[in-house]
Formats: sequence, C-alpha cells, structure tokens
Amino acid sequence: MRATVIHAPHDIRVEEVPDPAIRLPTDAVVRVLKACICGSDLWAYRGESARQPGQRIGHEFLGVVEETGAGVDGFTVGDLVVAPFVWSDGTCAYCADGLTTSCPEGGFWGSVGSDGGQGEAVRVPHADGTLVKLPAAAASDDRLLTALLALSDVLGTGHHAALGAGVTEGSTVAVVGDGAVGLCGVLAAKRLGAERVIALGRHTARTDIARRFGATDVVAERGEAALAAVRELTRGEGAHSVIEAVGTEQSMRTALDIVRDGGAIGYVGVPHGSASGVDLGVMFDRNIALRGGVAPVRTYIPELLPDVLDGTIDPSPVFDLSIGLDEVPAGYRAMDGRTALKVLITP
Amino acid sequence: MRATVIHAPHDIRVEEVPDPAIRLPTDAVVRVLKACICGSDLWAYRGESARQPGQRIGHEFLGVVEETGAGVDGFTVGDLVVAPFVWSDGTCAYCADGLTTSCPEGGFWGSVGSDGGQGEAVRVPHADGTLVKLPAAAASDDRLLTALLALSDVLGTGHHAALGAGVTEGSTVAVVGDGAVGLCGVLAAKRLGAERVIALGRHTARTDIARRFGATDVVAERGEAALAAVRELTRGEGAHSVIEAVGTEQSMRTALDIVRDGGAIGYVGVPHGSASGVDLGVMFDRNIALRGGVAPVRTYIPELLPDVLDGTIDPSPVFDLSIGLDEVPAGYRAMDGRTALKVLITP
Repeated sequence: MRATVIHAPHDIRVEEVPDPAIRLPTDAVVRVLKACICGSDLWAYRGESARQPGQRIGHEFLGVVEETGAGVDGFTVGDLVVAPFVWSDGTCAYCADGLTTSCPEGGFWGSVGSDGGQGEAVRVPHADGTLVKLPAAAASDDRLLTALLALSDVLGTGHHAALGAGVTEGSTVAVVGDGAVGLCGVLAAKRLGAERVIALGRHTARTDIARRFGATDVVAERGEAALAAVRELTRGEGAHSVIEAVGTEQSMRTALDIVRDGGAIGYVGVPHGSASGVDLGVMFDRNIALRGGVAPVRTYIPELLPDVLDGTIDPSPVFDLSIGLDEVPAGYRAMDGRTALKVLITP
Repeated sequence: MRATVIHAPHDIRVEEVPDPAIRLPTDAVVRVLKACICGSDLWAYRGESARQPGQRIGHEFLGVVEETGAGVDGFTVGDLVVAPFVWSDGTCAYCADGLTTSCPEGGFWGSVGSDGGQGEAVRVPHADGTLVKLPAAAASDDRLLTALLALSDVLGTGHHAALGAGVTEGSTVAVVGDGAVGLCGVLAAKRLGAERVIALGRHTARTDIARRFGATDVVAERGEAALAAVRELTRGEGAHSVIEAVGTEQSMRTALDIVRDGGAIGYVGVPHGSASGVDLGVMFDRNIALRGGVAPVRTYIPELLPDVLDGTIDPSPVFDLSIGLDEVPAGYRAMDGRTALKVLITP
C-alpha cells in the first residue's frame, strides 16, 4: 500500500510500504477513508520532535474494517469506524477510569513499527478497545464523514481542554490558540454551557470559525494588549477558565496572564521547548489550577458522537484544505506555512 | 506593647512597639491569647524571603476583641476570635467566591505597616470580613484553644491541599512533608474520607503524629526508594491524590513521581528557590493536575470549626513546644533546627 513516511525534518514522502496484516488476534485492519494532518505532526516535520528516519506519520483516521483477528468481538468486516489517536486495550485499570492514554498496552500511530494514519490502511492493535463504530450511512455523507474525523483527535482534545479548564454552565472561557484544537476548544466550551467565550487570534479566517463555533468575543491583540483586552471583557479579573491549545512558553504565559485568580488552565498544547511558561510562584499566589495533558479521546467519543451525528456540533469547518494522499507533502508545507488550518486527506 | 520584630536573617527580637489602635472604622484590636511560629516564617528567618528590617512577623493568632471601630458590626469587646493568616473584606467578588486570599483589600499580618501575630495585640483591618467568633467557653480550655489556633493556618492549609489533590471518599492519598501543614493534610484527607493515607517522613516523632491523625502507612525512604515504596503500596500505580506541603523543587519532584496517572497534586508548600520541580512534559503525558496555592483559610474556618469543637479532629498535637513571648527567638532556633515541629506562643 501507499503511506506517508517521514525521512527527516521537512522530508515527508508518500511511498510504497508493506500492506498491513493481522499479527495478533486482537488486531484489525482498517482501510482509511479520511485522514488528516495535525498541528502536532508539524513538530516532527520541523525536527522539534525526534523521529527515526522511515517512521510513518499521522494519527487521525476513520475508515472501514477490512479484516479482523480471531479475538476481535466488537467489529466485523465492513464496519465504518473511527480511531482515536492512541490505541488502548479497553480492559486495564486506566481504561476503566477513562484514562486510555495511560493504558500500558497502548501506543501511538506512527510510533516505530506501527502504521500511521496518513496512508491507505492501518493495522489497529486492540481493535475492541480502540475503535468506535459509526453508522454505515455516514460513509455516503462527505460533510458528516469529515466532521466525524475530528473525533479522532481535535474535537476530543478541545473537550479535554474545556474539562481541564473547568468550563461549566454560564462560565467565561478564554481560548489561547487559533489552530484546530483551539477552535474545537471553543466548540467544546460552548457545548458545555459557557456563556462567554473569548477567542484570542489575529487571523480572521480562523477567528471567523471561532465565532461560528460560539465565540462571543475575539481578541486580536497580543502580549500586554491582549491581557488588557481580556481584562476589559471580564470586569478586570480575567477568565475563570482558560484553554491553552498551543504548547509554547509564550502561550502558557498568556494563559496565566488572562486567567482569573482561583481559575483553571486546561492545557492540551503539546509542551515543547526548554521552558514551560509555568510560573509556580504566580500560580501559588493566585490559586491557579493547571489540568490537562494528552487527551483520552477514546473515552470522549461515545459522548461527543451523538452531537456530531445530529448536527448539534459540527467541527468540519476546521478542515480548510482537502487533498489526496499523493499531495500530503504539499499539505505539510501548507500547514507549516499557515496557509492551511487543517488538511483533510482522502487516500 | 511587646511584639516580635525581624531585623535581619537570624535576628528576631521581642521588643517594645507602639500599641495597636483603631485607624479605620472597620478595624478591631485583638489581644492575643495564643500565637505560633509557622514553617513559612522560617523562610524570612533564613533570609530566603526578603523582609525590611523592623517588620513584624507571625500570621497565626487567636484572642479577645479589645476594641472595635464604629463600622464593625459582627464583634463586640470581649469576643473570643480566631484570625486567618490574611485579612480580607468579606464583601468583594473574590471573598464571595471563597477566594479570600485574592481580596483586593486583603493583606498579610506582618507586612510593612501592619502588626504581626507574634505579639501582645494586633490591629485587625476589615474585622467583620476577617475574624471568626469562637465559643467563649473555649477560652478556659487550653487544649481546645491550642487546637483552635490551628484554624488560623495549618489546618485550613492542609484542608486546601486535600481539596486540591482531589481527595474523596475511599481515595488513596500520599502526603509529602512531615511539617505541621503536611500532618494537617493527613488529618484533612482522613476527614474527607480517604481510605489510605501514606505519609512520607523519616522522623518518628512526626510520623507518629501522622499515624495518630489517620495515616495508614508511613514511608521513611527517600528518592527512588520512596517512589518504589509508594508504588508497592498502590498496585504499582501511585496515589490518586498527593499533598505537597514543602515547597521545594525536590518535594514537587517527589510529588510528581508518586502521583498516579490522571491524579492530582494539591500543593500548599510556599514555592521557593529558582526551579519549581514542575515538569510540564511529564504532567502532560500522564495527565497530572496541579491545584492549590495560598489557602483561603477564612473560607474554611466555618466548615472546620465544628469538627474541632466537638473533637472529631484535633490538630493540637502539631504544637510540640510551648513558650512565652520572650522566648520567641529561641522558638525560631528550635524550629529552624528541627528540634521543634511547631512552636506555640502564649504572650
């Protein structure tokens, strides 16, 4: 089959790789209908996250079950399924708690020896624990299929951030980061009942989506001016809940600047760089909570799926460029250059 | 009157200072019956927290109202009262939310221009918002009075840590720090229904108090061995809730080591030193929450007071050395040298 391979920073190729096959009875093979490029893939692309030459890449996909191991009970050939961005066994103590990302049997698509999502097919370990079935009818609805793809990462990650930030009915939320995760954070905050959602961002194409997703205010300023603008909108106090969806030192500092005393930062931006932006002394004095991390999206899919199916929420606008598999290298360039927000791949 | 003054690191003196007097209608003057020395006072004593020469010191006291301003409604002369370690107006948005430590009118005893708790009397700003009345009968019960003094800081701070760590009925809690706050964290965790409370500490005098307060296990090891011991007690996973009651880089690292994936660290140790011990990358991968800070103990006093009055909880064993006001310098030396756990002062 053909799949995306990363050979070195900025060297992404689509090439012929071995077809996936059942290795363990708990495996399934899924033929990919839709996949996409994640902002976090760019860290590997830019060389900021180490990869071995020849690793696969891509961790978001949905598709059709093509083959199942003898031990797979929950799926049959032909099922339409979505995969969360990590696999997990569904049976351990962590999975029982909903923390599927800490499953000792779990792993990431594209890690050494595993398939990535940006290819024609994927061997799925622990298929029963990992995959979630979608209604067959969705396969013929391209818009819906695109929306459902967001369940594999960005929608659940935005939801995780909103939970971490303590978003509740009537709360005020600020969102740092205008990427797909930040925008899904807006959507998730609104879904959880936030009354006021302040999106920080300077790109009108993105902040327009934020407004469509429920943002009540947009702050285009940066640094001190952004802080002043958020204060102005929040009686001088800051937002109870802040979603940090970038992962840089600067974004964490901004989150800390604009959160209200006693509030919480829900952070889902993958931390990178040597400094964290976390100032424990400031957090201590102001009783700021920090909650979040790698989102256990497998746990959230059953809760979010009905709302996507019935159109209550529609994350599909985060995909603003649609390409075929051969165009994936161009897709990375587009996201790296910020000419695309999130790239949809139809293999 | 006589009060404790800090002139320089290791230079603590008890000397004659001006008598406190009503300055604003919302003030009261409280004659101190019991005060004490806090572990956090030692940062000033050791020169790790800056103080201006001549500042007062001490932030924990209870006593009798001696005079009230014209605007004080809740107290009359002769009332027995306890003061939390910060004053607050009781009327602002933060006070309404229970975050009295963020009150814009609030302040710390011993800050420049204010009285400290380690003296004969204290001018109390915003008396109505700050003080809490105690039953008059308690004044004649020395053991009870000592227990009630813990409401001014360490008991409420331990409670704040337990809440931050997410302690619930049946949970497993580990406590880093065997000072008075850590021990009160044990007491608070037990009170909130923790089934298993693991106290980390090497001093048997202190861990004996921990056991008396409800610790089910004591881990005397340090570093890697402590981690292994806690893992051994928690099915290899770590504790859902960890109370961090020290504030050093090492103690925060230990907390992060022994917390279970998806768990929370409730931190109330005043952060000091240049590094925080917070590893955001580790927290991200393991979904560790960090919650806590300076405890709004004023908010907790009404909840904790009945349990102290009826003996459900008795924090008084944390006071293991009782002195008069003139002996305060010796009290600092005893706590600095760890020959005393917490020093009780009867002016």
